[in-house]
Amino acid sequence: MAAVAELVELDRSECLRLLAQVDVGRIVFTEAAMPAALPVHYLLEGEEVLFRSGGGRYFTAARPAVVGFQVDNLDPATRTGWSVLGVGQAYEVVDSVRLAMITGGVPEGWAPEPASHVVAVPLQHLTGRRFCPRRATAG
Amino acid sequence: MAAVAELVELDRSECLRLLAQVDVGRIVFTEAAMPAALPVHYLLEGEEVLFRSGGGRYFTAARPAVVGFQVDNLDPATRTGWSVLGVGQAYEVVDSVRLAMITGGVPEGWAPEPASHVVAVPLQHLTGRRFCPRRATAG
Repeated sequence: MAAVAELVELDRSECLRLLAQVDVGRIVFTEAAMPAALPVHYLLEGEEVLFRSGGGRYFTAARPAVVGFQVDNLDPATRTGWSVLGVGQAYEVVDSVRLAMITGGVPEGWAPEPASHVVAVPLQHLTGRRFCPRRATAG
Repeated sequence: MAAVAELVELDRSECLRLLAQVDVGRIVFTEAAMPAALPVHYLLEGEEVLFRSGGGRYFTAARPAVVGFQVDNLDPATRTGWSVLGVGQAYEVVDSVRLAMITGGVPEGWAPEPASHVVAVPLQHLTGRRFCPRRATAG
């Protein structure tokens, strides 16, 4: 069995760097008074997460509400990897100039309905942790 | 670009079958009045998710509270995969007979502190969706 991992808190810039490497995350919200999380195909633009929605469940969850956004990349075999959690007040991007600029970059959604909305989650609060192999210690 | 996927709702037995194939999921909860999700290394036992905790953040989140449990397996390139979301009233497993039976099966946690608690999340509410390639249609 691998040694128990060491846990390192990540700063904001490192969290953003990791979020830019991945394209699937999870919107974390409350649905019918119960905790919920659903995956989204996202783009990181500056310090905001952007994803498409057809106006269904994700859209209802995210507009207008404080939602979480979670991404991880973990290897159970080595017990290494990282996890990042953002929180922010979601909003729909309706500015036509901005929409025109980002429209090619925001990935398509998975759901079959036309994803005609773009939702933004500003990462107002952002924390992360890296699980590293434990360093050898003296003694 | 791949065709937009078809979305298929999964029944409870299919959700459980998928949860048994994976060993990393996410506990979804509220922390300081904000939505949060953190990864856990878990074991599915019957219709409950079991994971170890050292008594820190996960433990505080999960005892005693209704928490979410989310797992997904998605391929952005093909826009296929699945996502499962459970909800249940978490509790600490303290029964010594049960602890003795499950102790070898529940994987170690990632955090460096000794994971001396076992938390159970009964999947009282369980939903899931599979994203499939769109089937060819006539016309």
